[in-house]
Amino acid sequence: MDLWFTEKQTNTLGLSLKVLRTLVTEHTQFQDLAVLETEQYGRMLVLDGIIQTTTADEFVYHEMITHVALFTHKDPKTVAIIGGGDGGAVREVVKHPGVERVVLVEIDERVVAASRQYLPEIAAGLSDERVEVRFEDGIRHIRENKGVYDVVIVDSTDPIGAAVGLFSAEFYADIYESLKDDGIMVAQTESPFHNQDLIRKSFSAIRDLFPITRLYLAYVPTYPSGMWSFTIASKENDPLSVPMDRFINIPTKYYTPQIHFAAFTLPQLVGQMLQG
Amino acid sequence: MDLWFTEKQTNTLGLSLKVLRTLVTEHTQFQDLAVLETEQYGRMLVLDGIIQTTTADEFVYHEMITHVALFTHKDPKTVAIIGGGDGGAVREVVKHPGVERVVLVEIDERVVAASRQYLPEIAAGLSDERVEVRFEDGIRHIRENKGVYDVVIVDSTDPIGAAVGLFSAEFYADIYESLKDDGIMVAQTESPFHNQDLIRKSFSAIRDLFPITRLYLAYVPTYPSGMWSFTIASKENDPLSVPMDRFINIPTKYYTPQIHFAAFTLPQLVGQMLQG
Repeated sequence: MDLWFTEKQTNTLGLSLKVLRTLVTEHTQFQDLAVLETEQYGRMLVLDGIIQTTTADEFVYHEMITHVALFTHKDPKTVAIIGGGDGGAVREVVKHPGVERVVLVEIDERVVAASRQYLPEIAAGLSDERVEVRFEDGIRHIRENKGVYDVVIVDSTDPIGAAVGLFSAEFYADIYESLKDDGIMVAQTESPFHNQDLIRKSFSAIRDLFPITRLYLAYVPTYPSGMWSFTIASKENDPLSVPMDRFINIPTKYYTPQIHFAAFTLPQLVGQMLQG
Repeated sequence: MDLWFTEKQTNTLGLSLKVLRTLVTEHTQFQDLAVLETEQYGRMLVLDGIIQTTTADEFVYHEMITHVALFTHKDPKTVAIIGGGDGGAVREVVKHPGVERVVLVEIDERVVAASRQYLPEIAAGLSDERVEVRFEDGIRHIRENKGVYDVVIVDSTDPIGAAVGLFSAEFYADIYESLKDDGIMVAQTESPFHNQDLIRKSFSAIRDLFPITRLYLAYVPTYPSGMWSFTIASKENDPLSVPMDRFINIPTKYYTPQIHFAAFTLPQLVGQMLQG
């Protein structure tokens, strides 16, 4: 059987992958969940028809949403991850030996269960003893925890349905309050080729709260356009001023101290998008 | 009618775009040629089923295959472009006021004709009086012109059929000979996610010839994986040692002097691919 999965990245653009095996499909309380085995990019987590991660390229997104913020903070001990139920971001955070506590707040426990079962190399970090997994609303968790975190990572799905609130000015303001005085937040903020309005709006809302706000980019083949943006915001420490001796050696496939800095160098049009 | 074009980027990966209009399809002497109007990325040139360029993202590829080499050379006057019949690379090269002569060597005159007719904003530079368009075999042209060029740009299709020779060690050796003593070559060398063997082989063959050989990257949404590589090789000048005062101001949408340098910062796995 010649079975193909197609993600409609937009109404007029599709990415299709040949599927070797359907490992699981289910309707959870919150969304449609599937794990597919593809020939091109390995195993793939799909939520509501949107590719979340694949075993072949997940390292890019997970390393880049974590290490830039973790190394920008002088001594991160307490980290919250909102979303990210696959566990990939957790796996990267626990590579930092100074981290004492990681709170993963994922609304859908089926995502965590599917990842543990079918994507064990991604979910591995979830078993680390420093990790607490909470199945609850990330927006409420952040609102109810003030001055607690060194780093808050917003590892959200696309801004559709329940995830819309994870791109709101109110949520960013609550994150600011949930952080300690030298805290840092980072959020995935979609593609500069497809989501200019969203990036402009998120960036502007975050910049209104934090003294230091910057956008950086990474190559993610299975996300629309392949160019993915992250917005990092910091109360004290500038990601572009990290001293070289802070970069302890951790095993990575994409991130390096040099990539840390280079990722902030924006193509002309992307830089212009953030002005004004 | 709901008409979609699909490029099989590999046997197990497809990119599909909704087509508003088919502007032209023809069998040329060398290949199947089409220009399609897409809703997502504007007008699109397709050769043998492979997307060559679209009006929405062509600026990335065309700026990055030209300006890095042109600014690395101290005073480029004579430039050859092998392939690149759409004219996009020519358009960028003629932005450099010191350039006196650009020789575009395109084997298929129908590509140039279709681009002039249907992609005028890409083909614009072809009318510049410094440009000479030659419809002939680029391999032979390079072999027969020795010590002539300041910069040679290999703007080839994928390494299939006739274009295989444009990725060969023999061709690179002929390019070396076609260059002046301070000459520079640059070639598009496909995606690090999909074409590791090709990149390794090309890079190694070029490094055996030139004292300075480097790989750099750019985001091209309509190319497989979105991460695209270019290999630049130079007899004298290092692209990483360009003095800031050499970067005269030219209009661009992607390239900046900062991007020039940052594009050489390779993700861990891509850097490792080139070792040994």
